Amino acid sequence: MTFSSMWRDLAPVGRDASSGGYRRFAWTREDATLREWFAAEAQRRGLDLTVDRVGNQWAWWGDPDAALAAGRPGVVTGSHLDSVPDGGAYDGPLGVVSALAAVDALRDSGFEPDRPIGVVNFVDEEGARFGVACAGSRVLTGAMTADRARSLTDGDGISMAEALSAAGRDPHELGPDSETVRRIGTFVELHVEQGRHLSTLETDTPVAVGSDIWPHGRWRIRTLGEANHAGTTRLEDRDDAMLGFAAAVIAARRAAETHGCVATLGKVAVAPGGVNAIASEVTGWLDARGADEDAVRRVVADVTEVVEEFGGLVVEDSWTGSTPFDPGLARRIATRLGGIPVIGTGAGHDAGILANAGVPTAMLFVRNPTGISHSPEEFATSQDCLVGVDALATVLTDLAGEHA
Amino acid sequence: MTFSSMWRDLAPVGRDASSGGYRRFAWTREDATLREWFAAEAQRRGLDLTVDRVGNQWAWWGDPDAALAAGRPGVVTGSHLDSVPDGGAYDGPLGVVSALAAVDALRDSGFEPDRPIGVVNFVDEEGARFGVACAGSRVLTGAMTADRARSLTDGDGISMAEALSAAGRDPHELGPDSETVRRIGTFVELHVEQGRHLSTLETDTPVAVGSDIWPHGRWRIRTLGEANHAGTTRLEDRDDAMLGFAAAVIAARRAAETHGCVATLGKVAVAPGGVNAIASEVTGWLDARGADEDAVRRVVADVTEVVEEFGGLVVEDSWTGSTPFDPGLARRIATRLGGIPVIGTGAGHDAGILANAGVPTAMLFVRNPTGISHSPEEFATSQDCLVGVDALATVLTDLAGEHA
Repeated sequence: MTFSSMWRDLAPVGRDASSGGYRRFAWTREDATLREWFAAEAQRRGLDLTVDRVGNQWAWWGDPDAALAAGRPGVVTGSHLDSVPDGGAYDGPLGVVSALAAVDALRDSGFEPDRPIGVVNFVDEEGARFGVACAGSRVLTGAMTADRARSLTDGDGISMAEALSAAGRDPHELGPDSETVRRIGTFVELHVEQGRHLSTLETDTPVAVGSDIWPHGRWRIRTLGEANHAGTTRLEDRDDAMLGFAAAVIAARRAAETHGCVATLGKVAVAPGGVNAIASEVTGWLDARGADEDAVRRVVADVTEVVEEFGGLVVEDSWTGSTPFDPGLARRIATRLGGIPVIGTGAGHDAGILANAGVPTAMLFVRNPTGISHSPEEFATSQDCLVGVDALATVLTDLAGEHA
Repeated sequence: MTFSSMWRDLAPVGRDASSGGYRRFAWTREDATLREWFAAEAQRRGLDLTVDRVGNQWAWWGDPDAALAAGRPGVVTGSHLDSVPDGGAYDGPLGVVSALAAVDALRDSGFEPDRPIGVVNFVDEEGARFGVACAGSRVLTGAMTADRARSLTDGDGISMAEALSAAGRDPHELGPDSETVRRIGTFVELHVEQGRHLSTLETDTPVAVGSDIWPHGRWRIRTLGEANHAGTTRLEDRDDAMLGFAAAVIAARRAAETHGCVATLGKVAVAPGGVNAIASEVTGWLDARGADEDAVRRVVADVTEVVEEFGGLVVEDSWTGSTPFDPGLARRIATRLGGIPVIGTGAGHDAGILANAGVPTAMLFVRNPTGISHSPEEFATSQDCLVGVDALATVLTDLAGEHA
């Protein structure tokens, strides 16, 4: 299976015909198809497939437990196959497909790893269905409790516990899995770049190494009003929850400008939601990030002040502080790949969750000509993707080779 | 069947257990239950049930066609049984149940009508499912074409044509039905008051007569942006459709204050709608009304100006100019009921559509202590409801009696 044939296999799965974007959400039919595809690719290569307590899939070349006992824990690479609503083809799948292609390249070259190499497909990275990003790695490492995960609900009110049952998994299985985590001696995630750093360099640079993930979080903004008739309720008698939401959107943008961060309200739910009914409750989801932790906190404080003026409240759904990747590992990889750039990112990744759990972790970014991500426009050239595979194979050779 | 027993029959149909509000949308299972209930009530009373080309149900006491031929067309009363999302129990059903109860009262009293009396259940008055209010009476009178109605879609993308088929109706049947309209010599709709006019009077006044319906309309506000990653797209690189929507919400409120109208954005749809994706498209529905037509137009012009600054556009979904009810009829009813008040309303009704189609039309409003409507809090006391039935019976006696 070449890179392109794997890419073609995945192309139709969960693709929305009208938007051209992907709708691959955790524990849906589309997700099951992707998981079957991953299992089949592992089997085709004779890799040992294991599924941890959370549902993340691991395909091992070599015995990770024997290696661990011998003090030479494995090198893992991979990413995720799920998407945001109407997301692009690259965010996630590029890392999984590149990982399999890199393993193929190593085996074709006759490379004999001194440490086992694992390829992972993390479940529910985007959090598109249940609202919490990196749910698969968070529960795996204990960063989110199984109870909280089970009780998260999707837009139809279906809990993750119910979704797991519907997908044929026992929700009571869910929980931290230290046995699986211990097998990861080093983790390297390859990802399409989200932003235009590489495209704006003067030299032709298709790949970079990650330095850190910006501090980022999600907050739920809830404003309350009173449902009433839009035509017959005088302005002075009405309590319209939409006004507080609109003020929060504007405040978030202004605060992001002031404090040098980014802030976004990209999702909203209105009750009762009728054209001729005044909103009784509006929930908006705020995503805020920045290079500096205090600055992000100031953005949220500014928005909270405005929301509270409207009698609303702001609740933190998730928060991840600044997450540096292993600096020595980043330097080693950058040097090994000919002095490629080392760049930060505003996007969260399972790599960040593993780094926070103490796993030596690195990321590789493949150039994105427009910088657009989480959209059908997300793109990387085939040529850059193949350079990415080659870079990943080089890194694996270095990290899993003799004397590594 | 007394008023209270009919009220009890309807109470559980389409009631949402969590909100306590009603979700009775056109051509759904709940709607079918309500239609069956209406047909059974007609049959129980020996009224002749007819269903017109649109699906509105008519229960006749007496032969409307013979009366029409004799130059004494019928007197029709009634309202609708559908609701807004999480609506109240009174908006619509109070008029239908009061109509049946008034017919019972007339028959119990031995009254022999000189004109036939009809009770109507209009379909799809709220427009909660397909977005256009009074769809049943609009198509009936030709105010909306059958083609447009058939092509309206609900939130799941199901067209009205498909919904009709699913409900066992032939969508090709849909169309103006002048035969049905001609039978209506006079129309009187009883409705719960939406507002606090009656409650704020110093004298105890449970019922009023309608003078007119304010000019009102619905507009669709569409702002466009570019879907992109919420964490990695710099503020200067992003085009966020949510910002234009927020500005429109604030502009609508300000314009309503300036021009003495009401304006509401109670429904919004965001694409792609992910927490970590910048909005590429936001659609907001603007509902604007006021006593003065030019003032309402000025509100919409102000909002349009702001939306266009953001590169968005505003499209008119529906517009109904000021709709006066028959002034002579209103005076006659007010006098007959002992000089009760004559008041205007900001809410649209099937009565307004019939008035615009040239049918002599009147409305009766029953006091609402809080003024709240389109909400589970919507309320009228049982005592006021019974006063309403009595008033309606008096009006029918007057309009359908000898020498009327």
